[in-house]
Amino acid sequence: MKVLFQIEGGGAIGVECNAGDNLLELARRANVAIDAPCSGNGSCGKCRVKLVEGDLASLPTRHISYEEFKSGWRLACGSKIVGDVTVFVPDIASAYQSRMKTADLSSPQEVAIFEEAQEALRGSGVEFSNDCMALELKVEPPTLQDTMPDNERLTRAIQDQLEVERVEIPHSVMVRLAHVLREEGFHITVKGLFLGDVFRCMDVCPASDKDLVGCAIDIGTTTVSMVLADLNTGKILAKGSSGNGQIRYGADVINRIIEQSRPGGRKKLQDAIVKETLTPLIAGLCKAAGVSARSILRLSVGANTTMNHLFVGVDAQSVRMEPYIPSFFAWDGLLAGDLKLPANPLAPVFLAPNIGSYVGGDITAGTLASMIWDKDEYSLFIDLGTNGEIVFGNRDFLMSCACSAGPAFEGGDISCGMRATDGAIEACVLDKATMEPKLTVVGDKGQKPVGICGSGIIDIISELFRCGIINNKGLFVREGRRVRRDQHGMGRFVLAEPEQSETGREISINEVDIDNFIRAKGAIFSAIDTLLKAVDMSVEMIDRVYVAGGIGSGINMKNAVNIGMFPDVELEKFRYIGNSSLTGAYAMVMGDQAVEKVAQVAANMTYLELSTHPGYMDAFVAACFLPHTDARLFPHSRQEV
Amino acid sequence: MKVLFQIEGGGAIGVECNAGDNLLELARRANVAIDAPCSGNGSCGKCRVKLVEGDLASLPTRHISYEEFKSGWRLACGSKIVGDVTVFVPDIASAYQSRMKTADLSSPQEVAIFEEAQEALRGSGVEFSNDCMALELKVEPPTLQDTMPDNERLTRAIQDQLEVERVEIPHSVMVRLAHVLREEGFHITVKGLFLGDVFRCMDVCPASDKDLVGCAIDIGTTTVSMVLADLNTGKILAKGSSGNGQIRYGADVINRIIEQSRPGGRKKLQDAIVKETLTPLIAGLCKAAGVSARSILRLSVGANTTMNHLFVGVDAQSVRMEPYIPSFFAWDGLLAGDLKLPANPLAPVFLAPNIGSYVGGDITAGTLASMIWDKDEYSLFIDLGTNGEIVFGNRDFLMSCACSAGPAFEGGDISCGMRATDGAIEACVLDKATMEPKLTVVGDKGQKPVGICGSGIIDIISELFRCGIINNKGLFVREGRRVRRDQHGMGRFVLAEPEQSETGREISINEVDIDNFIRAKGAIFSAIDTLLKAVDMSVEMIDRVYVAGGIGSGINMKNAVNIGMFPDVELEKFRYIGNSSLTGAYAMVMGDQAVEKVAQVAANMTYLELSTHPGYMDAFVAACFLPHTDARLFPHSRQEV
Repeated sequence: MKVLFQIEGGGAIGVECNAGDNLLELARRANVAIDAPCSGNGSCGKCRVKLVEGDLASLPTRHISYEEFKSGWRLACGSKIVGDVTVFVPDIASAYQSRMKTADLSSPQEVAIFEEAQEALRGSGVEFSNDCMALELKVEPPTLQDTMPDNERLTRAIQDQLEVERVEIPHSVMVRLAHVLREEGFHITVKGLFLGDVFRCMDVCPASDKDLVGCAIDIGTTTVSMVLADLNTGKILAKGSSGNGQIRYGADVINRIIEQSRPGGRKKLQDAIVKETLTPLIAGLCKAAGVSARSILRLSVGANTTMNHLFVGVDAQSVRMEPYIPSFFAWDGLLAGDLKLPANPLAPVFLAPNIGSYVGGDITAGTLASMIWDKDEYSLFIDLGTNGEIVFGNRDFLMSCACSAGPAFEGGDISCGMRATDGAIEACVLDKATMEPKLTVVGDKGQKPVGICGSGIIDIISELFRCGIINNKGLFVREGRRVRRDQHGMGRFVLAEPEQSETGREISINEVDIDNFIRAKGAIFSAIDTLLKAVDMSVEMIDRVYVAGGIGSGINMKNAVNIGMFPDVELEKFRYIGNSSLTGAYAMVMGDQAVEKVAQVAANMTYLELSTHPGYMDAFVAACFLPHTDARLFPHSRQEV
Repeated sequence: MKVLFQIEGGGAIGVECNAGDNLLELARRANVAIDAPCSGNGSCGKCRVKLVEGDLASLPTRHISYEEFKSGWRLACGSKIVGDVTVFVPDIASAYQSRMKTADLSSPQEVAIFEEAQEALRGSGVEFSNDCMALELKVEPPTLQDTMPDNERLTRAIQDQLEVERVEIPHSVMVRLAHVLREEGFHITVKGLFLGDVFRCMDVCPASDKDLVGCAIDIGTTTVSMVLADLNTGKILAKGSSGNGQIRYGADVINRIIEQSRPGGRKKLQDAIVKETLTPLIAGLCKAAGVSARSILRLSVGANTTMNHLFVGVDAQSVRMEPYIPSFFAWDGLLAGDLKLPANPLAPVFLAPNIGSYVGGDITAGTLASMIWDKDEYSLFIDLGTNGEIVFGNRDFLMSCACSAGPAFEGGDISCGMRATDGAIEACVLDKATMEPKLTVVGDKGQKPVGICGSGIIDIISELFRCGIINNKGLFVREGRRVRRDQHGMGRFVLAEPEQSETGREISINEVDIDNFIRAKGAIFSAIDTLLKAVDMSVEMIDRVYVAGGIGSGINMKNAVNIGMFPDVELEKFRYIGNSSLTGAYAMVMGDQAVEKVAQVAANMTYLELSTHPGYMDAFVAACFLPHTDARLFPHSRQEV
């Protein structure tokens, strides 16, 4: 049987299929870009398609209203083939544009943070320049007298404009050359690398196409973020994010390493990130930016050590096996074509270097972006992701460690959790007396809440604690209209009644959620604590705390201190620096000097393996309270009882 | 439904299929190596498989006896899927070995010719050396103390043995490194290129695997020949040939160019040569040689201009359109991975350069092998293929031209024609009085004839002419037991009665065959004639005539002169030099100096376009007689009447 995808804005793609095939997977196989930020687990509700002809086996979900269902709307991820079918696929470009409003770099604050970091890097002497060049050429057509073949003709035209000894024309250019020359009347633009003596052609295009695009990628264990930028001006052309498609092979890196060690597993995990996550994301951003994927001439990746291995398809088993030495720290031999990424096949892919099994390129890129390596003052850099990573130091030394925090900061492991996109409760204040919450929701005015993102969870737990609604173990100890219990006695706090929420379901936080979150924040604080002790420093000596991660600029530092997540230092020392891995990757994609600088930063960074470090487990257990078993560590934490 | 291929010597490969699918095409899609030198047109009878379970839609053919058919043998190319089926596939290695007896470089004479050419090249100062290297390494395993990752560890181990500044580890090596190191207990061999300051890794293998293999390929319009050689010693590891799978898109280059210009045509034509022809041929030769395809670190190709374009997938339209300038003459940017050839993806593919639309790399490589560029004496070099190409000159100048001879020299366009393999009549003498033929048949003693190859056709026509059985137009003028006529009066000469032939069918040559052949030989002679006139030379000034091509060492020069195919010079001036394109390609794969030398030879060669040359058509018409309309040109031609 066959499914036909009718794509909004033109075009249709057919693919052979069998009964029972999942529609989203078929779309991916056929390279049809369907927006699926949650990567098909049914949670995001974005992969909407509409039946044109035939039928699909699928049920109404909370993301599709009964009226929508009746008029043919379905979620691709929840639909199975039952026979020949034609579906309409909404334009992914507009989908990305709408989502971009709330994704990384979406808010003016995040953009300001991003631009400030780039300014700081440039200010410290890291120039944003690269070898990419677009050269407009008027090539002489061949005649019976001038019998030079196409490749020599191109070489001559380039050498007329540039003083280069040699012009390299690789296969991917050679196969287009004859056609493009004639199609364009011998007036073309050649894109490539100007490497002193050599010009390496990477593409031949119509004369008007001078796009030189860089693609900076942050591959998180849970979330992937991406920016397309103009390689000349640095202008951001498009940006977006998506769930990491590997999520179905495990929420954390350990499970994914185990999964990739099974027969065929390495390819499966690589496909999940490259084919299923990055490929549609790049395609969507290119469409939104109005550029061709082939005009992406540089890529950069900030990813943790395991993500780096799985991304390039290198066995990651050594990451988790004694002596915990990954297969590579730094490695500079990667091209987009090696991974069949939708980009110019000859585009180099710069990987921010790993420095240990659990401190990877996301941290070295993030440290680059934080600028702590350029300062005298002692800075603490905290990256809140599925793994929490901590770097402490200054221009003289950098010490790092990692802990497993789980996906709670990205809204995972929380019953009503979600990423910081439209409908996420990102902040919350409680009235101590009435317990009534005042919620801040991501999105346009009037947006009803859908769930709770990381910064919202911090606020809610901090407020529940401050108002004496939960105790220091996170259990509900005050009764009230919004505090409810299920048949097992488990308490929960209702933030939005079903009729107040976008989904028609209650939004609440329960004791299991709170316990999960306390473990996550405990892991972070105990890692900071252990790292400081290892370098014989104390909390008072911290001059700055940089907080990074997809948790969003909505993070309330006071509340984070209040629950014992961050050390109790003056609030003005805190600074949220956004997705620093993406910021660092952007710098790398823009300039070779940033690539060199991140290598230096990585070379100067020492790695502390916490799992074998004496004292870490005790510190962790002690931190799994609100704010801490040793309340003296948090003099400013308040419980107003 | 599904077909399961059970491969002799172990292994089984399953592939999904539909009713009506061709079994040979399915095998190719599944990368199952089935021997199919005719590329599936049913003529060679080599692609035998045996039913194990299920059934196929196929009929007995002349290649499968009734007994064999009953016991389950089928030709893959003539079998269609009707349901689930399991077939047994004979070991292709032994198939190749048996065929090699009669393919290129099979006879002691051909090998002697080949080796003599290599000796001559070396003698003229062209060294057979290349940068490939296999380095056995004992790498230190990582420990908690020695925490270097795999790639730095490999680099260190290489630098311990070689003074190189930089070690390049590309993606294809990186993805194998972790696994191979641990599988082999950190005792490995690394293969790569030793480029002065840089060592470029190309493969990591078990320590015992030191194979460095070169693959030299002659891509003819009709036939493809290949040699695998040891890159250190030059020893030939395996050799074989096959029909060019593009044949179904047209017998000559013009039809194939037209075909590739249709939508999707370029990929179709490229797949036909790369996937369907070269891939199984390389796989078969690797198996026969006992080497892995990945150990092929260099490849070289001698092919005509059109074949070169179609092979690399570059639009060939410009070859046949005014001003007849191909897309490339020389081009050095090709890697095996660009074409997904079964070889090391980083292996360079050296293309012998083209010099015009119809004089390509097969001729420049062949000219290199002929050594005529190194001599004072005037030499004529004739390559007999589907196109006939002629080069004339010496160390001071080289002039070339091409003509369209058709496939007659390779047994095509002839009713009982075949390539010079087992069962081919390669020579023939007639008794003038009785007309009884004395046949020489390729193959073991007792081999019954199957058909007639190129050299056999020359002999037969020459003998029919000498004995006055045909006139100078190729029409039968003598009656006899072996001269028969069909209902239209068309004459034929019976060489073997049905009961004398291997196939049970009569083997004969008819007036249409003879006419086709006269046109082919006429094209060759008129090209020689026109080329000589263009440089103001005459037949008497020719010091040497080198004859190349798959026609085989059985070619009888006296008979070729007798029918007016070659100029009437002293017989001792003739020399058959075998498949000179393959010989030249072998030299190129072995050494960089040969690659440079062939570029020089090409640069010094002038191209004469015959199709627009005044006088060529007249010369052609005049040459379409036995021996020629101007008998004075052939004083030694005899018709004993």
